Amino acid sequence: MELRQIRVANILMVRTIRTLMAVDLPLVGVFDVQDVLVPMLPQDVATLSDCLLMRDNRRIQMSIRVNFENNLDELKSKITEMGGLSIVALEKSFKALKTQDVEIALKVIEGDTAIDKLETEINQFTIWIMAKEAPVSRDLREIIGILKISSEIERVADFAVNIAKATIKIGKPKSLLDITHLEQMKDLSIEMLKKALQSFLEEKILLAKEVGDLEDQVDQHSRETYQKLTAYLSEHPEETNQLVQLLFVNRFLERTADHITNIAESTAYLIKGQIYDFNS
Amino acid sequence: MELRQIRVANILMVRTIRTLMAVDLPLVGVFDVQDVLVPMLPQDVATLSDCLLMRDNRRIQMSIRVNFENNLDELKSKITEMGGLSIVALEKSFKALKTQDVEIALKVIEGDTAIDKLETEINQFTIWIMAKEAPVSRDLREIIGILKISSEIERVADFAVNIAKATIKIGKPKSLLDITHLEQMKDLSIEMLKKALQSFLEEKILLAKEVGDLEDQVDQHSRETYQKLTAYLSEHPEETNQLVQLLFVNRFLERTADHITNIAESTAYLIKGQIYDFNS
Repeated sequence: MELRQIRVANILMVRTIRTLMAVDLPLVGVFDVQDVLVPMLPQDVATLSDCLLMRDNRRIQMSIRVNFENNLDELKSKITEMGGLSIVALEKSFKALKTQDVEIALKVIEGDTAIDKLETEINQFTIWIMAKEAPVSRDLREIIGILKISSEIERVADFAVNIAKATIKIGKPKSLLDITHLEQMKDLSIEMLKKALQSFLEEKILLAKEVGDLEDQVDQHSRETYQKLTAYLSEHPEETNQLVQLLFVNRFLERTADHITNIAESTAYLIKGQIYDFNS
Repeated sequence: MELRQIRVANILMVRTIRTLMAVDLPLVGVFDVQDVLVPMLPQDVATLSDCLLMRDNRRIQMSIRVNFENNLDELKSKITEMGGLSIVALEKSFKALKTQDVEIALKVIEGDTAIDKLETEINQFTIWIMAKEAPVSRDLREIIGILKISSEIERVADFAVNIAKATIKIGKPKSLLDITHLEQMKDLSIEMLKKALQSFLEEKILLAKEVGDLEDQVDQHSRETYQKLTAYLSEHPEETNQLVQLLFVNRFLERTADHITNIAESTAYLIKGQIYDFNS
C-alpha cells in the first residue's frame, strides 16, 4: 500500500463526509460515517485487508459519480427551462411590437423575474457543486459551460425586455415594421436558440456549427434594416421616434444572435475541449 | 477528543495535501506530508498528545488562511488592473468620438483583448480557489463578488469598444456632440467607476451608495440627450447617420452607468451580506 493511495482514500472520505453534512440536498447512497473512518497510518492500513479498503473506495467513488451526474441532469433541466422561457419572451415581445400591444409588452417585462431567478439558482447550484465535488477536466468544463450558457440566456431574455420597452416607447402610430427585416431576424434568432439548446443537451457539435451560419444571415438582415430605416428617416423626419426605436430593436436582435452564438461556442468547447469562434 | 474534531482535522489535512499537489502555484509555508498524516481512529488519536495535534492543526489552519488572503490580494490587484484599463478605454473612446480620430478608435478596439484576457484569468483563478479551498460564508461571498465585478468591468470595456465603433461609423462630418450631454455622462461614469473600485478595494459602503446617486444624474442627462438628438433629427434629416450613432452612444453610456452601479451593488453585498438595489 503506497502513500499516494492513502491520500486518495483520504480525499474520497472527506468528500463523503461533506456530502453527508449537506443534509438539505439529495444523496445517492448513504454511508455510515464509521464505514469511512479507516485508519490512515501505513502501519494501520497494513493491518486491514487491502480488499476491504478497495471495495469501500470503489463504492464511494461510484456513488460520487452517480451523484455528480444527477446534479448535472438537474442543472441541464434548469437550462432547458430558462431557454424555453426566453424563447417565449422573444416571441411575446415581438408580438407586442407587431401589434403595438402595451399589455403584452408589460407581461414580458414582468416575466423576466422568473428567468433571472432561474439564473441565480443555476449559479448557486454550480457553486455548491464546485465547492463539494471539486470537479476536474471534462466535469469542470461542463460546469463552467453551464454557468456561461445560463448567463448568455439571461442576456437574450434581457433583449426581449428591451424590445418590450421599445414597444411601449413607440406607442400607436402607423407601424413601419414592414419596411424592416426585423421579423426574419426574430425568427432566425429563435431557430438559433433552439438549435443551440439542442446542441448543448444532446452534445451535437454539428448543430452548434449551424448556429454560426444562421448568425451570418441575421447580420446581413441587420445591415439592410439599418440602411432602410436610416434612409426612411431622412425622408420622414416626422417619424423619428418610431424609427429610432426600430433602429434600437434592430441592434437588440443583432446582439441577441451574438449571444446565442456564444451559447453554441460554449457548447462546442465543452464537447471538444477546444475554443471555437463562430462569430467571425 | 470528539469525532467532530477529527473530521475537521481530516478536512484541513486534505486541503493541505491538495495545496501541496498544486506545485505550479505559490505556497505560503511548506508542510512535510508526514506532518499531516496523523492517525484517524479515535483510539489512535488517544495515543497521541492532544497538544501536538492541536498545534499542528493550528499551524495548518493559519497557513491556509494566509494562503487564501494572498490569493484574494492577487485577485484584487487583477480587478484594479482591469478597472484601470477600462477607465483608459472609456477616456480614449470618448476622445476618439470628440476629435473624430479613427486611429484612436482602432486602438481602443485592439486594446479590448487585454481586458478580456484579464477577465479570463480572474475566472480561472477563482475557479481554482473554489476547487482547492472550498471557501464558505464571507470568503465565498468575496470570491463570487469578484467574479461578478470582473464580468461587469468587462461589459463597461465593451461599451468603450462600441463607442469607438460608432466613432468610425460617424466619419468626419461637422460634429454635433455639443448639442448633447454625452461628455458629462462620460465624466460621471468614470467618477462612478473610480468610486466603485475604491469602495470594493477599501470596503467602504458609503462610496458604493454614492455611485447610486451619480447614476441618477447620468439617467437624467441621458433622457435630455435623447430629447435633444431626436428633436434635432426631425429638423435635420440630412444628419441622420451621425445623429443615430450619437443616440446609440447615449444608450451605451447609460448602460455603462448601469453596469458600474452593479459593481457598487456587488461590493455592498460582499461587505454587508445583504442584497442592495442602487438602480431604482
